[in-house]
Amino acid sequence: MLNYLKDNMKCKMIVVILLMSFCIGNAQQLKSPNEKFLLNFSIQENGTPQYDLTYKNKVIIKPSKLGLELKDESMSLQKDFIITNAKNTSFDETWKPVWGEVKTIRNHYNEMAVTLQQKSSGRIMIIRFRLFDDGLGFRYEFPEQKNLTYFVIKDEKTQFAMAADHTAYWIAGDYDTQEYDYTISRLSEIRGLLSKSVTQNLSQTSFSNTGVQTSLLLKTDDGIYINLHEAALINYSCMHLNLDDKNMILESWLTPDAKGDKGYIQAPSTSPWRTIIVSDDARDILASKMTYNLNEPCKIEETSWIKPVKYIGVWWEMITGKSSWSYTNDYPAVILGTTDYAKAKPNGTHGANTAHVKEYIDFAAQNGFDAVLVEGWNIGWEDWFGHSKEHVFDFVTPYPDFDVVGIRDYAKSKGIKMIMHHETSSSTRNYERYMDTAYKFMKANGYDAVKSGYVGDILPRGENHYDQWIINHYQYAIEKAAKYKIMVNAHEAVRPTGIARTYPNLIGNESARGTEYQAFGGSKANHVTILPFTRLLGGPMDYTPGIFEMDISKLNPDNKSHVNATIANQLALYVTMYSPLQMAADLPENYKRFPDAFQFIKDVAVDWDDSKYLEAEPGDYITVARKAKGKDNWFIGNVNGYNSRTSTISLDFLDAGKKYSATIYADAKDAHYKTNPQAYSIKKMMVTNKTQLSTLSVPGGGYAISIIAMDN
Amino acid sequence: MLNYLKDNMKCKMIVVILLMSFCIGNAQQLKSPNEKFLLNFSIQENGTPQYDLTYKNKVIIKPSKLGLELKDESMSLQKDFIITNAKNTSFDETWKPVWGEVKTIRNHYNEMAVTLQQKSSGRIMIIRFRLFDDGLGFRYEFPEQKNLTYFVIKDEKTQFAMAADHTAYWIAGDYDTQEYDYTISRLSEIRGLLSKSVTQNLSQTSFSNTGVQTSLLLKTDDGIYINLHEAALINYSCMHLNLDDKNMILESWLTPDAKGDKGYIQAPSTSPWRTIIVSDDARDILASKMTYNLNEPCKIEETSWIKPVKYIGVWWEMITGKSSWSYTNDYPAVILGTTDYAKAKPNGTHGANTAHVKEYIDFAAQNGFDAVLVEGWNIGWEDWFGHSKEHVFDFVTPYPDFDVVGIRDYAKSKGIKMIMHHETSSSTRNYERYMDTAYKFMKANGYDAVKSGYVGDILPRGENHYDQWIINHYQYAIEKAAKYKIMVNAHEAVRPTGIARTYPNLIGNESARGTEYQAFGGSKANHVTILPFTRLLGGPMDYTPGIFEMDISKLNPDNKSHVNATIANQLALYVTMYSPLQMAADLPENYKRFPDAFQFIKDVAVDWDDSKYLEAEPGDYITVARKAKGKDNWFIGNVNGYNSRTSTISLDFLDAGKKYSATIYADAKDAHYKTNPQAYSIKKMMVTNKTQLSTLSVPGGGYAISIIAMDN
Repeated sequence: MLNYLKDNMKCKMIVVILLMSFCIGNAQQLKSPNEKFLLNFSIQENGTPQYDLTYKNKVIIKPSKLGLELKDESMSLQKDFIITNAKNTSFDETWKPVWGEVKTIRNHYNEMAVTLQQKSSGRIMIIRFRLFDDGLGFRYEFPEQKNLTYFVIKDEKTQFAMAADHTAYWIAGDYDTQEYDYTISRLSEIRGLLSKSVTQNLSQTSFSNTGVQTSLLLKTDDGIYINLHEAALINYSCMHLNLDDKNMILESWLTPDAKGDKGYIQAPSTSPWRTIIVSDDARDILASKMTYNLNEPCKIEETSWIKPVKYIGVWWEMITGKSSWSYTNDYPAVILGTTDYAKAKPNGTHGANTAHVKEYIDFAAQNGFDAVLVEGWNIGWEDWFGHSKEHVFDFVTPYPDFDVVGIRDYAKSKGIKMIMHHETSSSTRNYERYMDTAYKFMKANGYDAVKSGYVGDILPRGENHYDQWIINHYQYAIEKAAKYKIMVNAHEAVRPTGIARTYPNLIGNESARGTEYQAFGGSKANHVTILPFTRLLGGPMDYTPGIFEMDISKLNPDNKSHVNATIANQLALYVTMYSPLQMAADLPENYKRFPDAFQFIKDVAVDWDDSKYLEAEPGDYITVARKAKGKDNWFIGNVNGYNSRTSTISLDFLDAGKKYSATIYADAKDAHYKTNPQAYSIKKMMVTNKTQLSTLSVPGGGYAISIIAMDN
Repeated sequence: MLNYLKDNMKCKMIVVILLMSFCIGNAQQLKSPNEKFLLNFSIQENGTPQYDLTYKNKVIIKPSKLGLELKDESMSLQKDFIITNAKNTSFDETWKPVWGEVKTIRNHYNEMAVTLQQKSSGRIMIIRFRLFDDGLGFRYEFPEQKNLTYFVIKDEKTQFAMAADHTAYWIAGDYDTQEYDYTISRLSEIRGLLSKSVTQNLSQTSFSNTGVQTSLLLKTDDGIYINLHEAALINYSCMHLNLDDKNMILESWLTPDAKGDKGYIQAPSTSPWRTIIVSDDARDILASKMTYNLNEPCKIEETSWIKPVKYIGVWWEMITGKSSWSYTNDYPAVILGTTDYAKAKPNGTHGANTAHVKEYIDFAAQNGFDAVLVEGWNIGWEDWFGHSKEHVFDFVTPYPDFDVVGIRDYAKSKGIKMIMHHETSSSTRNYERYMDTAYKFMKANGYDAVKSGYVGDILPRGENHYDQWIINHYQYAIEKAAKYKIMVNAHEAVRPTGIARTYPNLIGNESARGTEYQAFGGSKANHVTILPFTRLLGGPMDYTPGIFEMDISKLNPDNKSHVNATIANQLALYVTMYSPLQMAADLPENYKRFPDAFQFIKDVAVDWDDSKYLEAEPGDYITVARKAKGKDNWFIGNVNGYNSRTSTISLDFLDAGKKYSATIYADAKDAHYKTNPQAYSIKKMMVTNKTQLSTLSVPGGGYAISIIAMDN
């Protein structure tokens, strides 16, 4: 009996040992360099890959499924997997961006590449995880193999299972726009609030009552901040997140094309990176460079032509309705190449006329700006919108009152660059047909940078702004521009995902609700305290700040809109809304009314050696200090939400033993974004690294400080 | 009482007179110059425009509605019209085509332009009718006006109400292909036969069990032939016809785009012309030039670079499967710019290799051909089809074994032109992105003509081969080619509609079931007796005839297909299937086996001063004689259907008093397309304008005659 029991025990032991080996082989772990993050990866019983993530032992992502559903129902990349390999490596490198918030960026992660194979089909998929000290990035890879070459994605099934009903800072998922005000609510409340949050837009397509866009910011009740986004969105469809609000699981929801398909893939290929940036310190979210780190290094060999730029432009007057983009009211519709503009009666409100543009060039030169943008310079604006018109612009033919060569030469004589404007009206085939000609025209006429726009529903009709087909178009425009040494600032395009590391000529996007909405009815006063936590994670935003006249009816009596910000807040934006492309958007006459405040805009740098996020709470306040590139000067910006507060900061980042002259542009005590936005105070004082500053920020207010090193 | 009656009568008279004036104003008439056609146009009670057409007092079109249904249901261009103007004019002009069946073409018509206005909306639409001696053309015009500028067509509602259950020669309506064999049946039988007629194709989309394509041929029991088609299809959607087989009414059915819309129109604009060609003599249908006459005159100023061409090519060997377009079997998929072809093992079956191409150049030079086409010369063929691959070809990078420059120089030294091949795989955006580069590459390397192809489903995905968006693309390619002085032969594009009058660099299309189908299972033996009555009305077809080896298994043992024609039939096609672009499609080795028959192909002209259709019956036979341009020589071709017959023709078109040496290539007595296709006889004789010839044509047979003027 005892022998029998002994043998049986041995058997069981062997079985247990084998099982344990199998289990160990079925589960993989990865830690971040600082070991604060722990990633677990395993295969569920039916072969579905899953992962979970903890941060400082707190659950960030509960066990969540991974995979893709394919259009061909006989194929699936969702289950039936086993792990055939898991390769762990580490990487630690520092690189220098061409422009940025900081001079150098450290790319430091532990990586685990898990090779999965489907038992029945033999298909192989790799999931590559990179754990940084600020969070996790992972992507799918489809290696070259015989039985997986071309496939169509029905939808990606990446889950982010939340540990609780967190607070979310969200905008509704949409295939065509990101221009909504943010809503702050519990995840469970999204369903009830979404349709109200979807305000009118010139091109919009919601898809779910619980669908939101990325990047999405969340905050746990424990005070942990989580940002979900993607990096390196190239030749793939843009990811939104759809919330299962019973189980608090966010799942990827890609953007469909005209037929409803969500991606045409040819192996070998990779998906974009799905990113989870986490910290219990909100400032770490703002400072995270993970999105850039996950992108390919710079592909442009020679980059000296890529330069940050501070500009003004003939634009705000049209946005407010004071002027028009169009030249004439004679023609309800125009045909490029046929309509004779020489015969048209000018409407007298055309902003982009030579004399007016020269005024802007003069103002730019007098005030140290680099460039002038002009919108409405080219024929076609009489019927540019709302007609699904294909042959809408030709990008080269000016209106009769816009002297291309004269302006080129005048700007050059004043040391000012002109910024081109290519509104495409979303007619993408038309833009591509003209693109070489348009870029050549730019170079011939002194334009090195272009603001492009995609207003209105996309053509080809049926495609969406953020589907794979159109993302491919934006990329085409960027890469072709690089060949011409042209910088691109694309509005209404897909929100950026760090691609500017690879193509630093992409110096900006709008791709969120920008300052123009202040003239379309106003934005929430705390909008700018959220954007850096969400939209700016993927790349800079051409937010076009600097509005000094908040009562738009003063520019255009028919426009009752109000800019929900104080002047001090508008100054701070040049620091808090990082962008290598910064516009002083208001009219020169409004700047002339407040020359002392305007001085900050003239002084502030647009490129940085270092950035320090001093304090931050999404929806409430952000304060950041940045060191001007190649100088000892610093600039500080604070933007504030709905509650007055005193912002106390230490200037301990200054060099020890140095004296600096600080000019503080702050809200006046009685300032308020709604009732008294133009009240500000300017104080000058000497500061050192020992100085602490306490400054009042009013609702929708803030402050801006220039800190100039004093010669000793 | 009498006074009362008198007044009442006067009242009634006035009313009657007014009513009569109204009625007369409500009906309009138009006659053809020879008065054989009578068109009636009127407005129905609810304001719907209608027309009817008689020919020699026989009803051709019963009263049929006109108009368009718009997507915006609050707008309609179908009813509520009154006639506000009717303007009659005449036109008589002769013009010279750059190439053609004849040297001069007479454009002679009576025109009636009816202006209609909607009572409630005030919208204006013009219907312009042109009555020729060979039939009617009409189109819709949308003048510039305040309340009709941009509109979207839901469908066009043009009716062609047939007087009876005519015989129809038809192929199924389809948004993506025309490559079906014809069916001859009563209109009432279409419903039962259509799905069977829809054979396998690489891109196809039927839409209705009674939907057919144009041009459509009909024959009444009275022996009247009717052809329905369209002319000048530019910036509009391709028209099919859907049959209401209860009432025998054919109605226009346009091709939808990715969203299901059927046209985006900006006024001022016109629809294409809807054409009704009628005659009781079948030969008049073949000879009709109405489609060209309705197109705009030539827009190319200098046309000396546009030249008809007789060519051979590295093509049939791939179509039959003897060779491959692809270079290697190593790669299941390729990535242009990444895949290293230098490392690939050649598959040994790649047709487009330098040595082989030079053999073709030699053969062309030795036999008086103008040019050599080469398919499969450029990288990308390993995975070019069936994957909806966007970046499929770059049009400039040759395979390692195709020496672009070497071949260029060799061809030039032999006096041979090379014909470029641009298979696009229907990836239209990709083709447009490369188009300038590709056209420049052509000019740099001695290519003046390109055969383009659109095999497979269209990209952007969701669009159809014949929708407005893609028709716009074909037109873009033609117009850009003209700027480069490049001739275009577009396969799988929309069937032509006379546009070659305006852009004579469009020297050909396939856009129907061509010779390649003889290697894909065979076509009906009488196919070529129908095509000139249908497909060729809009423009020439690159039919690529001249196959001498009918048993395809002799070229490729795995291909059991049989060419359903005799050699004599294949020779005749050079005359009966008019095209300025004629290929001797078979392999040189097959021509070398039958040098006496081949002689006809060497001799036949490709451009003509005159053409005489001697006898014709759709589905049965066509015999045509053509006079070589600038010469006294004539060529005759006869193609035959399923029934043996003796073709008797008079040569009275020859110059009186001249002697000619005629060589007659005819079927042998026992020839048959299936069982004995290679049996032919060649007879030489002297002929004059008094000669009558009787020649036997077997099933699927025919004959070809060269008539060379003898010096006296």
